[in-house]
Amino acid sequence: MNIYESASKAREASIMLQAIDGDAKRKALVAVQEALKANKEAIFAANQKDIEVSEAQNIAMPVLKRLRFDEGKLQDVLDGIESLVHMEEPVGKVQMQTELDEGLILTRISCPIGVIGVIFESRPDALVQISSLCLKSGNSVLLKGGSEAKETNKILFEIIKKASEEAGMPQGWITLMETREEVSEILKMHNYIDLLIPRGSNEFVQYIMKNSDIPVMGHADGICHSYVDKAADLELAVKVVTDSKTQYVSVCNALETLLVHEAVASEFLPHLKASLEGKGATIKGCERTRAIIECEEATDEDWKTEYLDYILSIKIVSSLEEAITHINTYGSGHTDCIISTDEEAVKKFMMLVDSGNVFCNVSTRFSDGFRYGFGAEVGVSTSKIHARGPVGIEGLLIYKYKLMGHGHIVGDYASGTKKFTHKKLI
Amino acid sequence: MNIYESASKAREASIMLQAIDGDAKRKALVAVQEALKANKEAIFAANQKDIEVSEAQNIAMPVLKRLRFDEGKLQDVLDGIESLVHMEEPVGKVQMQTELDEGLILTRISCPIGVIGVIFESRPDALVQISSLCLKSGNSVLLKGGSEAKETNKILFEIIKKASEEAGMPQGWITLMETREEVSEILKMHNYIDLLIPRGSNEFVQYIMKNSDIPVMGHADGICHSYVDKAADLELAVKVVTDSKTQYVSVCNALETLLVHEAVASEFLPHLKASLEGKGATIKGCERTRAIIECEEATDEDWKTEYLDYILSIKIVSSLEEAITHINTYGSGHTDCIISTDEEAVKKFMMLVDSGNVFCNVSTRFSDGFRYGFGAEVGVSTSKIHARGPVGIEGLLIYKYKLMGHGHIVGDYASGTKKFTHKKLI
Repeated sequence: MNIYESASKAREASIMLQAIDGDAKRKALVAVQEALKANKEAIFAANQKDIEVSEAQNIAMPVLKRLRFDEGKLQDVLDGIESLVHMEEPVGKVQMQTELDEGLILTRISCPIGVIGVIFESRPDALVQISSLCLKSGNSVLLKGGSEAKETNKILFEIIKKASEEAGMPQGWITLMETREEVSEILKMHNYIDLLIPRGSNEFVQYIMKNSDIPVMGHADGICHSYVDKAADLELAVKVVTDSKTQYVSVCNALETLLVHEAVASEFLPHLKASLEGKGATIKGCERTRAIIECEEATDEDWKTEYLDYILSIKIVSSLEEAITHINTYGSGHTDCIISTDEEAVKKFMMLVDSGNVFCNVSTRFSDGFRYGFGAEVGVSTSKIHARGPVGIEGLLIYKYKLMGHGHIVGDYASGTKKFTHKKLI
Repeated sequence: MNIYESASKAREASIMLQAIDGDAKRKALVAVQEALKANKEAIFAANQKDIEVSEAQNIAMPVLKRLRFDEGKLQDVLDGIESLVHMEEPVGKVQMQTELDEGLILTRISCPIGVIGVIFESRPDALVQISSLCLKSGNSVLLKGGSEAKETNKILFEIIKKASEEAGMPQGWITLMETREEVSEILKMHNYIDLLIPRGSNEFVQYIMKNSDIPVMGHADGICHSYVDKAADLELAVKVVTDSKTQYVSVCNALETLLVHEAVASEFLPHLKASLEGKGATIKGCERTRAIIECEEATDEDWKTEYLDYILSIKIVSSLEEAITHINTYGSGHTDCIISTDEEAVKKFMMLVDSGNVFCNVSTRFSDGFRYGFGAEVGVSTSKIHARGPVGIEGLLIYKYKLMGHGHIVGDYASGTKKFTHKKLI
């Protein structure tokens, strides 16, 4: 089958998936779990091949780390599937119901989106995670993995396909695009794919977003801020900022820029510097910061930079309002935090900072579907349409309106013979 | 101000709007209502100028009809605003709340999207409708109307801006782009506009959708179907199909293609033909249709055509499944109806037809925000992301996550020192 035949098959399967009930999907998920466990040695062996090829090509360490699929990663994806097995059936939920007139009932119910296209770099665990989310939500999925994870993706895909189809899922609901097919072709398949989910580096996601007509869910940048208010508990601030910056630097919810109120800067910054240096992180500061602590110079470019590294840019601000404006100007709408004991300042910050996740007195690193208790996650979205912030199964659902009547015609309402009651039932 | 300055001002105002409470917005809506009523003669006079220019240019009748803003249209928009005044405040609603751990509370609340760009042809009432929806939902709005409605749009905009800003809405929350600014420039303003809503002809909406990086909410085609099942009440079917096709032909929810089960075709079609001809509608039929009634020939092209006219294409199908496949292949995901007394057939049709609105035994013309009881409406969406079907205020909202804590750091959870409770509160 070529890419268009596979996509067309996925579209057909997506219609069949709408009619599959919660129990059948639950059984298919359990079958996938069992099959992954039963075939784990073969998966690890395939992964070893990928790693050897990458090592021979001197691929960078972080890529190798993401590429590895071992006992730990297997357990993570099995846990993710387990949480989906126990999750309430999300399809067919009545979201609202209105009696428009006697015998004319409008119902809005949740339903799958249709066909999800997933394009991911290196991480084979993302393949399992997103496939199982698609299965639970009744969506077909077209997968396109990076060539560096070719063998791992292939075996994971085959295991999931076989186990789920044997358990009753429609043929072709899951498809893995072979590497010869170009990403650029997938980006043009708006007749087949309803939603694209890219998982990978900023440049990669940005490329996808700029080059497709298909709606894209995800985020390119994660330029997260913390603002230390004049009413902050400074000891707490040192602890939270250090965790936000250094707990795991190469991820989207790591802190990149710190804003500090001028009233507390001279007391706070030396303590923070000591704490960050203890974790191996360095500081780039604005002019006022450099008058207090010794550090490199931060330029306007730094406010727009996602370091994903042990570097923190610091700017001293004169007011809460200046902090909010800085964040709304340079931020990426991902996660931003205020550190303050002043309730009014907290309320204002959380209302006016226009980001998917606005935090108070905690680490930015909490911005994550697992930590939020969503179970498996599709990714984090910085879009302001459809799904925002960490996205679980909800981001893979939409709704349809069902209207049931008995020969009702609009002519009767246009002429005034009949009148709508619009009685809310649910 | 040039177009970028206005847009930047609208972005700033959108942040201020987030903090404005329900009462203030309610008062502003009432002020707009009063101002529209007080200035109605000036509005009608401006509209008369537009109509005279269009008449002198021999503009087509349907355009002139849409362009007219008279007592009836004024009453409609005032009624729309009235329903918004009484509607519960939609911003700041708690959608979910979870205790992640002791003292660490995650809350999801509804919030405005930000800046809405509205591009509309001819209909000045759309300007009032969408502006008031944006005000209620706390969004800034950039308006770009057609040159044929220039004078009417200008006065409506000025009245709404003055009344709402005097009532406390932030300066620049509403902007009317002057006609010299090209639509193509607006389509590139993804740094300023979060969502585009085009209102106009299919070609117009399609052009917008194809030429912008900004998410677009709306629909291009409305190719609606009815399927008369073998178990249909044929008298009801004649009544419902006639209303669906002829009650108002130039709108997106009018019926375009009728599918008829072969078992009832010879009994049904002659009655339908007589009823449709009584309303001045003609039929284009497939070969099997033409063996039963006299009519023009329908080709494959007809199944893809939105006539917006007194024409109905008819195809005879051999099964429910063939009807469903035809609709999912040729339909536009707008509104499709089954006419049947067989509960199983109805259930299957409504589950497997992948459209925003799936109906049973009623006219397709019910597919509309006002008839659904939504009050004012943004439009009808055939997108499968964010908002689908008739869209009211909900389509202008998104949400943000707020996380409140007391110095919680991720390091404690990564090391296992602390564990998440994930206790659902709301």
